[in-house]
Amino acid sequence: MVLGNCLIAQSGGPTAAINATLAGVYSAAKENKNIEIVYGGLNGIEGIMKEKLVDLSKILEKDDNLSLLSTTPSSFLGSCRYKLKAPEQAKDEYKKIFEVFEKFNIKYFFYIGGNDSMDTVLRLKQYQQEHNHGVTVIGVPKTIDNDLYEVDHTPGFGSAAKYIATTVKEIAADTAVYDMDSIIVVEVMGRNAGWLTLSAGLARDSKGKCLADLIYLPEVPFSYDKLMADIRKVMETKRQVVIVVSEGIKFKDGSFIAESKVKDMFGHGQLGGAAKNVEAKIKEALGVKTRSVEINVLQRCAAHYLSKTDIDESFLMGRMGVKLAEEGKNGVMVGSVRKDGSAYSLEIGCGDIENIANKEKKVPESYLNSDKNGLAQPAYDYLEPLVMGEVEVKTEKGIPVHLSIRDFI
Amino acid sequence: MVLGNCLIAQSGGPTAAINATLAGVYSAAKENKNIEIVYGGLNGIEGIMKEKLVDLSKILEKDDNLSLLSTTPSSFLGSCRYKLKAPEQAKDEYKKIFEVFEKFNIKYFFYIGGNDSMDTVLRLKQYQQEHNHGVTVIGVPKTIDNDLYEVDHTPGFGSAAKYIATTVKEIAADTAVYDMDSIIVVEVMGRNAGWLTLSAGLARDSKGKCLADLIYLPEVPFSYDKLMADIRKVMETKRQVVIVVSEGIKFKDGSFIAESKVKDMFGHGQLGGAAKNVEAKIKEALGVKTRSVEINVLQRCAAHYLSKTDIDESFLMGRMGVKLAEEGKNGVMVGSVRKDGSAYSLEIGCGDIENIANKEKKVPESYLNSDKNGLAQPAYDYLEPLVMGEVEVKTEKGIPVHLSIRDFI
Repeated sequence: MVLGNCLIAQSGGPTAAINATLAGVYSAAKENKNIEIVYGGLNGIEGIMKEKLVDLSKILEKDDNLSLLSTTPSSFLGSCRYKLKAPEQAKDEYKKIFEVFEKFNIKYFFYIGGNDSMDTVLRLKQYQQEHNHGVTVIGVPKTIDNDLYEVDHTPGFGSAAKYIATTVKEIAADTAVYDMDSIIVVEVMGRNAGWLTLSAGLARDSKGKCLADLIYLPEVPFSYDKLMADIRKVMETKRQVVIVVSEGIKFKDGSFIAESKVKDMFGHGQLGGAAKNVEAKIKEALGVKTRSVEINVLQRCAAHYLSKTDIDESFLMGRMGVKLAEEGKNGVMVGSVRKDGSAYSLEIGCGDIENIANKEKKVPESYLNSDKNGLAQPAYDYLEPLVMGEVEVKTEKGIPVHLSIRDFI
Repeated sequence: MVLGNCLIAQSGGPTAAINATLAGVYSAAKENKNIEIVYGGLNGIEGIMKEKLVDLSKILEKDDNLSLLSTTPSSFLGSCRYKLKAPEQAKDEYKKIFEVFEKFNIKYFFYIGGNDSMDTVLRLKQYQQEHNHGVTVIGVPKTIDNDLYEVDHTPGFGSAAKYIATTVKEIAADTAVYDMDSIIVVEVMGRNAGWLTLSAGLARDSKGKCLADLIYLPEVPFSYDKLMADIRKVMETKRQVVIVVSEGIKFKDGSFIAESKVKDMFGHGQLGGAAKNVEAKIKEALGVKTRSVEINVLQRCAAHYLSKTDIDESFLMGRMGVKLAEEGKNGVMVGSVRKDGSAYSLEIGCGDIENIANKEKKVPESYLNSDKNGLAQPAYDYLEPLVMGEVEVKTEKGIPVHLSIRDFI
């Protein structure tokens, strides 16, 4: 390894575990004798171009800030949605990035993000090789969507899944109290991949029966006729029905059901999302009392109820990023494979970044029941280990404490 | 005290602490030598008329069910929204209720609920006195809305307040990540009283500054002109604005802002709530990226993150119900008063039920800042003690375990 500084940045949508990964990269980088200063880049690659770098040691060596970082939701360093174009289309940007790298003597760059961010990693690696910059570029995955290849599951997914299942279980309890027919429709994130919606299936009663009576994923073509038939069947044996839909459920022709022609009072299209649309259709078709709940951003930022497995693994994935750099790898992403065996065990290693950038991993058909509106056993086998364990969260005056970059810049 | 059985039932909207109160009444009733069988009535007074009674000992003496009950959200015994009419208008109902009481030898009836339920308590007490039934009727308060008189605060409010403040803090972190102007509007429950909305003010940064930049309560007449001026003022010093509105915010003329003329594709009125309306107006007036989040039923059923103070007090309020019966009280409600002094201390005692039925306690003006869009110090003094402490929640396979009546009937 060459001697130099390292830079860590975060990109894409926030998660409740992305800072545990940052803590992991940081802690391994600090232990490495070839890395001198560990910088954090603010607002991803966009902020790096503006030279927005901070010395992370000055923040994370103080008090219990490193442990606090691991339970702080959202991207501590800020984020961006910026996707680098090909070098020939954005010469100035590449030039600027490597000028900043040179100015701050950055020899190692760790980018924590999803598939768009991995595309950036790949481009930067290719560019620096062609221009002999000698910078090691490593991707570390994150996303609540769990739609990346080269990992068994993505850091951040387990905590989101735990929160969704817990919330759906609580909603089911809330819905069950009145002695009357009622339907509740819960909307979960996921435009094209239904992993988060699938995780609602972990809400189960004492006999192991799923409390989400009907679950609809974007992978399965949606039809209102089928929905109403499914509801009628559930109502043969129970009065309150819990339905969980992905925000991305689509009709057979591929159009999103939530892309409706609804106009609000200002003439804007589409007030509600998938659940709102389903709610309205159920009321119309069945005349049953129906309401909807959109879990919204809470599912990606709820750090008060984390999966310990997720936080521990996210931290280790971050550490592995530095290990890959030590091994001389470049332009790769930290990957993971689930080991065979009866007990759950994850092997964290090296993933092929070309197999992850710009691709989406979908829920396999074998994870769904024959009606495609609920989980099959393989889904439970896959999901269960990922939500295990809780994390103690520090509070002050009864409310969780977060580490905020605004206190340091 | 006369020898006989007792009956406990729950009514109104569920909360995360209403079962801790049930556990409290149950545990004190079991200790009382004059109470033989402790029954639970299903679905409130409506279910009692249908003789839906269960022997609670058979459920709660098993395993750790009593402790599990205290952290189970929603009404374990089910609920109803049934308000008893005056005896002269509903003779058959009163007759039926007291027939059931006689059949099951009920001498003590404990009704856990809000102001409508307290009205029922009052009517039952008056009726039984006129007809010499010799039944003691005691009310035990609950509601997340915190709008009852005769209590310093209502059981269930503290946990809802803790959840709301925690969630708003997480949303603020989520909103802060991008380097761009954006606004998020969070909607909290409360049609006429703004206590829950006020509690969002407990989301604070490390310097004690409120992370909810603007807070609007139903107690303060709402105006879009004032809102836009408030937002512009906030944006002079920061790019991301967090706004919290009560579902019940009203214009000066008293009309709800969410009672809009919005039509969905089926011609139904009002798709969104207050936050959706505010979101649309902000986009129109300021052209800033805006989104909205409705915390919805989660704020009343989120039992995975409870206030220990709330759960402990809810349990003690339940126990006090039995103590009042022991003291020969009838037709009263368990009340509470905050003791003077620098440290928080609650005195649980007897409340006058005539001062609670059908009334709503509002947020006092002194709790608001001069702009009426944020908290003043008295609000913090009042709210802070109520959200203190966390409760360990039992999990199975990583998801909270609830006690369900369906496993026993």
